[in-house]
Amino acid sequence: MDNSQRIVTIKDIAQELKLSVSTVSRALRDSAEIKLETKMLVKEVAARLHYTPNPIALSLKEKRSKIIGVIVPEIANNFSSNTIAGIEDIAYKKGYHVLIFQSHEKYEREKENVQLLVSRRIDGLIISLANETQCYDHLTDTIDKNIPLVMFDRVCHSINAHKVITNDYFGAYNGVEHLIQQGYHNIALITLPLNLSITQNRLNGYKDAMKKYNLPVRDEWIIHSPIDVVCSEMTIRRILESDNRPDAIFISAERLNIICIKVIKEMGLRIPEDIAIAGFSDNPITPYLAPALTSVKQPTFNVGQKAAELIIELIENNNTTTQYRTIQLDTALDIQASSRRRQ
Amino acid sequence: MDNSQRIVTIKDIAQELKLSVSTVSRALRDSAEIKLETKMLVKEVAARLHYTPNPIALSLKEKRSKIIGVIVPEIANNFSSNTIAGIEDIAYKKGYHVLIFQSHEKYEREKENVQLLVSRRIDGLIISLANETQCYDHLTDTIDKNIPLVMFDRVCHSINAHKVITNDYFGAYNGVEHLIQQGYHNIALITLPLNLSITQNRLNGYKDAMKKYNLPVRDEWIIHSPIDVVCSEMTIRRILESDNRPDAIFISAERLNIICIKVIKEMGLRIPEDIAIAGFSDNPITPYLAPALTSVKQPTFNVGQKAAELIIELIENNNTTTQYRTIQLDTALDIQASSRRRQ
Repeated sequence: MDNSQRIVTIKDIAQELKLSVSTVSRALRDSAEIKLETKMLVKEVAARLHYTPNPIALSLKEKRSKIIGVIVPEIANNFSSNTIAGIEDIAYKKGYHVLIFQSHEKYEREKENVQLLVSRRIDGLIISLANETQCYDHLTDTIDKNIPLVMFDRVCHSINAHKVITNDYFGAYNGVEHLIQQGYHNIALITLPLNLSITQNRLNGYKDAMKKYNLPVRDEWIIHSPIDVVCSEMTIRRILESDNRPDAIFISAERLNIICIKVIKEMGLRIPEDIAIAGFSDNPITPYLAPALTSVKQPTFNVGQKAAELIIELIENNNTTTQYRTIQLDTALDIQASSRRRQ
Repeated sequence: MDNSQRIVTIKDIAQELKLSVSTVSRALRDSAEIKLETKMLVKEVAARLHYTPNPIALSLKEKRSKIIGVIVPEIANNFSSNTIAGIEDIAYKKGYHVLIFQSHEKYEREKENVQLLVSRRIDGLIISLANETQCYDHLTDTIDKNIPLVMFDRVCHSINAHKVITNDYFGAYNGVEHLIQQGYHNIALITLPLNLSITQNRLNGYKDAMKKYNLPVRDEWIIHSPIDVVCSEMTIRRILESDNRPDAIFISAERLNIICIKVIKEMGLRIPEDIAIAGFSDNPITPYLAPALTSVKQPTFNVGQKAAELIIELIENNNTTTQYRTIQLDTALDIQASSRRRQ
């Protein structure tokens, strides 16, 4: 079959019925000017030919595509997938569809994704930034085009948009304070690149907890882990092999937990006897790890729901707002064996 | 700003430059009929006004949207997210974009997703079926519209399409045979609804392994777990509380592993002393569970790559093919402590 035959248009229906295109179009729209029999005839032929209305024509009429674009760094982690589930929950209830794209932590991919979504006439964009992103023109462009924008988790404070974040500062502060209270005083931090908003907040939480207990904050114990897994493993191994080994590690990102546990076990170290750990994780599997992992839990589903509510509110108010809001949701500390009190 | 102003069209550029729409259109297309200066002027204004070409107009010209639609039951599991990563890997290299939708295991959502993707003029559809799906009209409709279709993992054999699957039969057979060889003879199977292709194949693998060793296959030990987590927990608990408790469970789906481990631990049973387990899982965390989980690993990234290669081949050959293929990739058994030899 020729590819050009695949899209059935109003013209095909008109030809088949020897009616004008305008009559068919009005019949499909249920216009009062068209007789009932004609409408039924047109709809019958439309169904038989598998006619689907052109979404652009529809959205020009309705001025909305009913599509929300979502860009996340990677869907293959619990934070992203739970957030997306929350976004879809609200969107579905309000009659919107969600298109999901991944930036794979690359600025160029993120920019391409934004451009593609914009060219697909999405009604609004929800985004969590890539590791690499340090230039925000693609987002200011979106705002200039008057497309509603909501940022979540990894946000950029200089951009005028609603933001949904969790209390990353207190998440890290509470986790590190817990390790200190369990008897660990030489605590390293493994975290993501510094340009990410979440990294800055979690780093500040770590530093403030250490300072509160008069513990030294050593630069060599703050590791900004690279994206590459092998490089991440090397940096963790290096700190654990040093003469001056920390007695605990606070892991500031979900994907680093398993890397950290792998390196510790490969080196034959015991958790928590040789090295205690606690980390951000939304994985429900943490209580079943060996040992069970103490973790900072974020209300991810709720983050997604809030982001969807905000974007739909913007869309339905034609992107007018009196002021941009930042909604901050609380984290919770789930204490398990990986941070058992030091003997 | 009024919402109607948000889309800049060729007409806006024409008005601004006091040129005809046709001149602007030809200038943007680099037509030889238009003077270089005019072209430069038009492109300058197009850039300043943030003009983006209408994707439908473009795809009517190119006859392709360069978009591949992907529908999975849930992205929040390793099978789906790794497969999507594989699809994106190939698609990106070949200049295609990937739109990801979730059916949430519901037939109605899946059908809606298909209709929406078709109305967005995707070039091709890659799908893994929802738990609930037992009617395939939405897929035959897609085929009737001459939109290339590739199915993966949960496929429907009666549909004429390329399929990419893993060797589910041998995955289950090998896993169950391993449990038998470790000294477990009363093995229950926890699996998904029977209408899914993967369930049938894995169930056959389980039955054949049991028969090979002359072990009885008991109907009450074959559990088709419901989607709901609480119901799943109840069915597992029921079998473990029965007088006639199995000594091992083969878990035939990733999402059931954690549910199973949770119930076993809540009941105070030890793995593998009281009950051995092995299951399908693509989660890299399995070696770090307590105890480490013996698992059937599927080449998920590769499944995604193959599915993308097949759909792009179909798209670029205008959906003509001499015969539909089913590509079957091998699984591997990762032996860990959860199936340690019975003492």
